[in-house]
Amino acid sequence: MKVENTHYRTVWMEDKEVCMIDQNRLPFKFKVLRARTYYETCHAIRTMIVRGAGAIGATAGFAMAQACLSAGVDDYEDVLLEARKTIEGTRPTARDLFYATERVYTAGLKGAHYAVEEAAMIAEENVSAATRIGHFGNTLIKEDFRIMTHCNAGWLAFVDVGSALAPIYTAHHGGKNIFVYADETRPRSQGGRLTAWELYQEKVPFTVVPDNAGAFLMSRGKVDMVIVGADRIAANGDVANKIGTFEKAIVAKNFGVPFYVAAPLSTFDSKCATGQDIPIEERDEEEVLFQTGPDSVGVMHTINVCAPGATAINPAFDVTPAEYITGIITEKGIIKADVQAIHDILK
Amino acid sequence: MKVENTHYRTVWMEDKEVCMIDQNRLPFKFKVLRARTYYETCHAIRTMIVRGAGAIGATAGFAMAQACLSAGVDDYEDVLLEARKTIEGTRPTARDLFYATERVYTAGLKGAHYAVEEAAMIAEENVSAATRIGHFGNTLIKEDFRIMTHCNAGWLAFVDVGSALAPIYTAHHGGKNIFVYADETRPRSQGGRLTAWELYQEKVPFTVVPDNAGAFLMSRGKVDMVIVGADRIAANGDVANKIGTFEKAIVAKNFGVPFYVAAPLSTFDSKCATGQDIPIEERDEEEVLFQTGPDSVGVMHTINVCAPGATAINPAFDVTPAEYITGIITEKGIIKADVQAIHDILK
Repeated sequence: MKVENTHYRTVWMEDKEVCMIDQNRLPFKFKVLRARTYYETCHAIRTMIVRGAGAIGATAGFAMAQACLSAGVDDYEDVLLEARKTIEGTRPTARDLFYATERVYTAGLKGAHYAVEEAAMIAEENVSAATRIGHFGNTLIKEDFRIMTHCNAGWLAFVDVGSALAPIYTAHHGGKNIFVYADETRPRSQGGRLTAWELYQEKVPFTVVPDNAGAFLMSRGKVDMVIVGADRIAANGDVANKIGTFEKAIVAKNFGVPFYVAAPLSTFDSKCATGQDIPIEERDEEEVLFQTGPDSVGVMHTINVCAPGATAINPAFDVTPAEYITGIITEKGIIKADVQAIHDILK
Repeated sequence: MKVENTHYRTVWMEDKEVCMIDQNRLPFKFKVLRARTYYETCHAIRTMIVRGAGAIGATAGFAMAQACLSAGVDDYEDVLLEARKTIEGTRPTARDLFYATERVYTAGLKGAHYAVEEAAMIAEENVSAATRIGHFGNTLIKEDFRIMTHCNAGWLAFVDVGSALAPIYTAHHGGKNIFVYADETRPRSQGGRLTAWELYQEKVPFTVVPDNAGAFLMSRGKVDMVIVGADRIAANGDVANKIGTFEKAIVAKNFGVPFYVAAPLSTFDSKCATGQDIPIEERDEEEVLFQTGPDSVGVMHTINVCAPGATAINPAFDVTPAEYITGIITEKGIIKADVQAIHDILK
């Protein structure tokens, strides 16, 4: 994807450095951060400088490769194991993270340059999968469709292209007239900030929707389909994704609006029988109680948006049971969210 | 209700001045605003210095009385009619506003002091109704109940006591152990700001909930009931209330969580056959795109919370059809949300 006419990926490796677009500064400032050690890369994942299932996976792979490059001969395997534990501890819900660390760790046992190659391959596969998701998802989109999405599952959430936004980009660049409703996605507002920023860059017609207005729009027949991403998909088709996804799926089902999940196969976790087995990350209440952004002259401020003395809950994800999902758009095609279809496609 | 040990109402009249708690400054600053003319009072309603169905009604009544007090003998009736039009144009969705202006206008035709008396009576009736709503609603609340509410339908939304929060206050002050989930209620965050502020003042145990986390909490059995307020209730039991109410009602129904609306009879509009007849106010997109609040040293800032260049939709209300509502808590008892029950209670 392009940012002001220069082609970028969300995350890439240059020698021993992992370079990534600092998503905490977006959409107000575009800056590339260079992490010199796997510790710094882990810190970037934990603080959401890089976020989104696919991007986290690729970054975790690069972090694992960094660990291999820096490990001495004497305690090589110990360092790899320790690094893997640290990387896997950064964000417990993202399936792609575990998928990537496992692959790069295994490659790294044969030697550091195998790890670097494997990490690069994961990133390439990510881009290729996203492109194919765009192709398959586009077949669902009719002329004049109004599509709702939640959170950011665009190119910033992947190495490039995205998952939920991939069909939207394919449709738009293919000349279809479409309109996107981007859920704000409190508390971190990834929809209002990142999805809106991406769509603006790509000139896709859109508007930001307060999370509360979903039922309002759907009850008036203004939403033709919903496409969201996924952080992890269980063997039975239950989907862990950004908090509010389940809420939106219930509302969509209520109005008969098709509700699609777009995700590469790396997001599927066959070791999780159902969504009940997916751990849900609880994040700091400060993300709800405070918000950060620029004033009219661009100076950043962190302001209190709730009553002083208030506490808040902040579950980062919820699990949408398979029965609410119309279909899952993968790089191998669109499947039903059920055990058999998932088993077949993962073969 | 008390603010730092002094008893306050949300709005009251002193001679020709309408005094009201400035809700745009809450919860960060407590300040009483004095409107000297009905124009100033209208401005306060329009800019949400006073907000919430009951408080808007009482304030509109006081504004109408102000107009009667200031009208000259020559064009007395013309001034009243003009004032009524202006007052009714401030917030089109609130039923209580039209109810109050009509009553005070009619009284005012007999003379200004009748108007002042009528406006005062509307305010008293509002407090009395809220107290009785608290009494009836409390019968639904069991020990250890966890109650979700949306937006602010507390004493700040009325002259005193509140509607949705009235049963909560009655239960809490009666010694029941309860816990409140206060929806943040974007875009204006009346839940995170005003409801949280009220509950904190009254020492009711609570936490703020991102609007997106409703389904998450309900799917885990953490919500025993939902109580919300109403801006207008149609003859068939459809309820117009803050944006997101409909969404929450759909989710509650999905999980079998009882969903109650608490509202005085003045909120019912028998001229509206169904919710389709209720006009929905569209507010400025800036309420979504920007947020205002104090930084860590108390200096207020308005910051951009969405991507530069983004637009937003901002419907202020939605209409929850009667079929999603378990019951309506009124000052005359708890009724079903259907034509017959509403017809009977309004007799």
